[in-house]
Amino acid sequence: MNTIEKINLAEKFDLFHDHYHPRMIGTLNGQKVILAKLKGPFVWHSHANEDELFYVVKGWFNLEFRDKTVRVGEGEMIIVPRGVEHRPVAEEEVHVMLFEPLDTINTGDAVSELTRKEVDRI
Amino acid sequence: MNTIEKINLAEKFDLFHDHYHPRMIGTLNGQKVILAKLKGPFVWHSHANEDELFYVVKGWFNLEFRDKTVRVGEGEMIIVPRGVEHRPVAEEEVHVMLFEPLDTINTGDAVSELTRKEVDRI
Repeated sequence: MNTIEKINLAEKFDLFHDHYHPRMIGTLNGQKVILAKLKGPFVWHSHANEDELFYVVKGWFNLEFRDKTVRVGEGEMIIVPRGVEHRPVAEEEVHVMLFEPLDTINTGDAVSELTRKEVDRI
Repeated sequence: MNTIEKINLAEKFDLFHDHYHPRMIGTLNGQKVILAKLKGPFVWHSHANEDELFYVVKGWFNLEFRDKTVRVGEGEMIIVPRGVEHRPVAEEEVHVMLFEPLDTINTGDAVSELTRKEVDRI
Protein backbone atom coordinates (compact mmCIF):
# COMPACT_ATOMS: atom_id res chain seq x y z
CA MET A 1 0.00 0.00 0.00
CA ASN A 2 1.47 3.32 -0.91
CA THR A 3 1.60 6.00 1.76
CA ILE A 4 0.96 8.98 -0.47
CA GLU A 5 -1.57 11.26 1.19
CA LYS A 6 -3.12 14.56 0.27
CA ILE A 7 -2.44 17.57 2.47
CA ASN A 8 -5.16 20.03 3.41
CA LEU A 9 -3.56 23.43 3.86
CA ALA A 10 -6.24 24.87 6.15
CA GLU A 11 -5.89 21.90 8.49
CA LYS A 12 -2.13 22.41 8.60
CA PHE A 13 -2.48 26.14 9.28
CA ASP A 14 -4.73 25.29 12.24
CA LEU A 15 -1.81 23.45 13.87
CA PHE A 16 0.23 26.55 14.69
CA HIS A 17 -0.32 30.15 15.57
CA ASP A 18 3.05 31.87 15.84
CA HIS A 19 4.34 34.29 13.25
CA TYR A 20 7.46 33.99 11.10
CA HIS A 21 7.94 30.44 12.29
CA PRO A 22 7.80 28.33 9.11
CA ARG A 23 6.63 24.70 9.07
CA MET A 24 7.45 22.18 6.38
CA ILE A 25 4.61 20.16 4.89
CA GLY A 26 6.44 18.37 2.09
CA THR A 27 9.55 17.96 0.00
CA LEU A 28 10.14 17.26 -3.67
CA ASN A 29 13.09 17.45 -6.02
CA GLY A 30 15.37 18.94 -3.39
CA GLN A 31 12.83 21.63 -2.57
CA LYS A 32 10.67 22.13 0.48
CA VAL A 33 7.07 23.26 0.76
CA ILE A 34 6.64 25.59 3.70
CA LEU A 35 3.65 27.13 5.43
CA ALA A 36 4.01 30.29 7.48
CA LYS A 37 1.83 32.87 9.18
CA LEU A 38 3.22 36.36 8.84
CA LYS A 39 2.30 39.42 10.86
CA GLY A 40 4.26 42.61 11.18
CA PRO A 41 7.55 43.36 9.49
CA PHE A 42 10.21 40.71 8.83
CA VAL A 43 13.89 41.54 8.35
CA TRP A 44 15.53 42.74 5.16
CA HIS A 45 17.44 39.84 3.67
CA SER A 46 18.39 38.01 0.50
CA HIS A 47 19.22 34.41 -0.37
CA ALA A 48 22.52 34.07 -2.23
CA ASN A 49 21.68 30.88 -4.12
CA GLU A 50 17.97 30.26 -3.73
CA ASP A 51 14.94 31.60 -5.53
CA GLU A 52 11.88 31.80 -3.30
CA LEU A 53 8.20 31.57 -4.16
CA PHE A 54 5.47 33.08 -1.97
CA TYR A 55 1.85 32.06 -2.57
CA VAL A 56 -0.88 33.69 -0.50
CA VAL A 57 -3.46 31.22 0.79
CA LYS A 58 -5.35 33.71 2.98
CA GLY A 59 -5.06 37.46 3.48
CA TRP A 60 -2.47 39.72 1.88
CA PHE A 61 0.91 41.26 2.59
CA ASN A 62 3.35 43.73 1.16
CA LEU A 63 6.58 42.39 -0.23
CA GLU A 64 9.05 45.24 -0.04
CA PHE A 65 12.02 45.54 -2.36
CA ARG A 66 14.58 48.32 -2.19
CA ASP A 67 12.94 50.09 -5.13
CA LYS A 68 9.29 49.13 -4.90
CA THR A 69 6.60 47.41 -2.86
CA VAL A 70 4.31 44.71 -4.26
CA ARG A 71 0.99 43.93 -2.58
CA VAL A 72 0.39 40.19 -2.84
CA GLY A 73 -3.15 39.03 -2.15
CA GLU A 74 -5.06 35.78 -1.81
CA GLY A 75 -4.60 33.56 -4.85
CA GLU A 76 -1.51 35.45 -5.95
CA MET A 77 2.14 34.42 -6.00
CA ILE A 78 5.49 36.07 -6.48
CA ILE A 79 8.93 34.66 -7.14
CA VAL A 80 11.91 36.44 -5.60
CA PRO A 81 15.08 35.58 -7.54
CA ARG A 82 18.25 34.73 -5.65
CA GLY A 83 20.28 37.71 -4.55
CA VAL A 84 17.38 40.17 -4.44
CA GLU A 85 16.86 41.93 -1.12
CA HIS A 86 13.32 41.73 0.15
CA ARG A 87 11.24 42.17 3.27
CA PRO A 88 7.72 40.86 3.89
CA VAL A 89 5.52 43.21 5.89
CA ALA A 90 2.05 42.07 6.92
CA GLU A 91 -0.34 44.63 8.41
CA GLU A 92 -2.64 41.78 9.37
CA GLU A 93 -1.96 38.08 9.66
CA VAL A 94 -1.47 36.41 6.32
CA HIS A 95 -1.12 32.70 5.51
CA VAL A 96 1.50 31.89 2.91
CA MET A 97 2.91 28.81 1.23
CA LEU A 98 6.55 28.97 0.13
CA PHE A 99 8.69 26.90 -2.19
CA GLU A 100 12.44 27.01 -1.87
CA PRO A 101 15.46 24.68 -1.80
CA LEU A 102 15.79 22.36 1.18
CA ASP A 103 18.77 24.22 2.61
CA THR A 104 17.22 27.69 2.48
CA ILE A 105 17.34 29.58 5.77
CA ASN A 106 14.41 31.90 6.38
CA THR A 107 16.42 35.04 7.05
CA GLY A 108 18.99 34.37 4.32
CA ASP A 109 22.06 36.53 4.90
CA ALA A 110 20.48 38.41 7.84
CA VAL A 111 21.02 36.12 10.80
CA SER A 112 19.06 37.32 13.83
CA GLU A 113 16.73 36.12 16.54
CA LEU A 114 14.23 35.46 13.74
CA THR A 115 16.53 32.92 12.11
CA ARG A 116 15.26 29.32 12.18
CA LYS A 117 17.88 26.91 10.97
CA GLU A 118 15.69 23.87 11.53
CA VAL A 119 12.19 23.74 10.15
CA ASP A 120 9.62 21.62 11.96
CA ARG A 121 7.67 19.19 9.86
CA ILE A 122 3.93 19.10 10.44
CA MET B 1 13.96 49.07 -11.50
CA ASN B 2 13.42 45.43 -10.81
CA THR B 3 10.94 43.56 -12.97
CA ILE B 4 9.60 41.22 -10.30
CA GLU B 5 5.82 41.07 -10.57
CA LYS B 6 3.16 39.18 -8.71
CA ILE B 7 1.07 36.65 -10.60
CA ASN B 8 -2.67 36.37 -10.10
CA LEU B 9 -3.66 32.74 -10.69
CA ALA B 10 -7.31 33.45 -11.57
CA GLU B 11 -6.22 35.94 -14.23
CA LYS B 12 -3.85 33.36 -15.70
CA PHE B 13 -6.52 30.65 -15.71
CA ASP B 14 -8.78 33.02 -17.67
CA LEU B 15 -6.23 33.03 -20.50
CA PHE B 16 -6.85 29.46 -21.64
CA HIS B 17 -9.69 26.99 -21.80
CA ASP B 18 -8.34 23.70 -23.09
CA HIS B 19 -7.83 20.65 -20.89
CA TYR B 20 -4.59 18.81 -20.16
CA HIS B 21 -2.64 21.56 -21.90
CA PRO B 22 -0.32 22.92 -19.20
CA ARG B 23 0.95 26.50 -19.18
CA MET B 24 4.03 27.72 -17.37
CA ILE B 25 3.73 30.81 -15.16
CA GLY B 26 7.15 30.83 -13.55
CA THR B 27 10.43 29.08 -12.87
CA LEU B 28 12.65 28.83 -9.82
CA ASN B 29 15.58 26.68 -8.76
CA GLY B 30 15.36 24.49 -11.84
CA GLN B 31 11.65 23.89 -11.29
CA LYS B 32 8.64 25.14 -13.19
CA VAL B 33 5.28 26.35 -11.94
CA ILE B 34 2.50 25.09 -14.15
CA LEU B 35 -1.20 25.80 -14.41
CA ALA B 36 -3.56 23.32 -16.02
CA LYS B 37 -7.26 22.72 -16.40
CA LEU B 38 -8.15 19.07 -16.17
CA LYS B 39 -11.35 17.40 -17.29
CA GLY B 40 -11.92 13.74 -17.91
CA PRO B 41 -9.32 11.01 -17.51
CA PHE B 42 -5.62 11.51 -18.26
CA VAL B 43 -3.26 8.66 -19.14
CA TRP B 44 -1.57 6.33 -16.68
CA HIS B 45 2.07 7.38 -16.43
CA SER B 46 5.02 7.89 -14.12
CA HIS B 47 8.03 10.19 -14.11
CA ALA B 48 11.29 8.32 -13.70
CA ASN B 49 13.28 11.14 -12.09
CA GLU B 50 10.82 13.82 -11.09
CA ASP B 51 8.54 14.26 -8.10
CA GLU B 52 5.37 16.16 -8.95
CA LEU B 53 3.18 18.36 -6.78
CA PHE B 54 -0.50 19.01 -7.56
CA TYR B 55 -2.28 21.85 -5.75
CA VAL B 56 -6.00 22.37 -6.40
CA VAL B 57 -6.91 26.03 -6.91
CA LYS B 58 -10.55 25.40 -7.88
CA GLY B 59 -12.70 22.28 -7.97
CA TRP B 60 -11.52 18.75 -7.22
CA PHE B 61 -10.25 15.65 -8.94
CA ASN B 62 -9.38 12.06 -8.25
CA LEU B 63 -5.75 11.09 -8.38
CA GLU B 64 -5.69 7.39 -9.13
CA PHE B 65 -2.84 5.13 -8.10
CA ARG B 66 -2.67 1.45 -8.89
CA ASP B 67 -3.74 0.59 -5.34
CA LYS B 68 -5.92 3.50 -4.27
CA THR B 69 -7.63 6.70 -5.33
CA VAL B 70 -7.19 10.04 -3.54
CA ARG B 71 -9.77 12.79 -3.90
CA VAL B 72 -7.93 16.11 -3.92
CA GLY B 73 -10.08 19.20 -3.34
CA GLU B 74 -9.71 22.94 -3.33
CA GLY B 75 -6.93 24.08 -1.01
CA GLU B 76 -5.37 20.62 -0.95
CA MET B 77 -2.14 19.35 -2.43
CA ILE B 78 -0.51 16.01 -3.06
CA ILE B 79 3.06 15.08 -3.95
CA VAL B 80 3.60 12.12 -6.27
CA PRO B 81 7.11 10.72 -5.81
CA ARG B 82 9.16 9.81 -8.85
CA GLY B 83 8.47 6.37 -10.27
CA VAL B 84 4.93 6.09 -8.94
CA GLU B 85 2.27 5.40 -11.55
CA HIS B 86 -0.66 7.78 -11.38
CA ARG B 87 -3.60 9.02 -13.40
CA PRO B 88 -5.62 12.20 -12.79
CA VAL B 89 -9.33 11.84 -13.47
CA ALA B 90 -11.58 14.89 -13.24
CA GLU B 91 -15.32 14.40 -13.37
CA GLU B 92 -15.71 18.16 -13.73
CA GLU B 93 -13.19 20.78 -14.73
CA VAL B 94 -10.58 21.41 -12.07
CA HIS B 95 -7.89 24.09 -11.94
CA VAL B 96 -4.54 22.89 -10.66
CA MET B 97 -1.11 24.35 -10.06
CA LEU B 98 1.85 21.97 -10.42
CA PHE B 99 5.48 22.11 -9.38
CA GLU B 100 7.99 19.89 -11.09
CA PRO B 101 11.49 20.03 -12.62
CA LEU B 102 11.93 22.09 -15.76
CA ASP B 103 12.44 19.07 -17.98
CA THR B 104 9.37 17.14 -16.81
CA ILE B 105 7.11 15.97 -19.63
CA ASN B 106 3.42 15.89 -18.76
CA THR B 107 2.80 12.27 -19.75
CA GLY B 108 6.08 10.98 -18.32
CA ASP B 109 6.83 7.56 -19.76
CA ALA B 110 3.49 7.31 -21.60
CA VAL B 111 4.07 9.22 -24.82
CA SER B 112 0.80 9.78 -26.68
CA GLU B 113 -1.22 12.45 -28.41
CA LEU B 114 -1.57 14.08 -24.98
CA THR B 115 2.19 14.58 -24.68
CA ARG B 116 3.33 18.21 -24.74
CA LYS B 117 7.07 18.47 -24.94
CA GLU B 118 7.03 22.25 -25.01
CA VAL B 119 5.10 24.22 -22.43
CA ASP B 120 3.78 27.66 -23.37
CA ARG B 121 4.60 30.46 -20.99
CA ILE B 122 1.73 32.76 -20.12
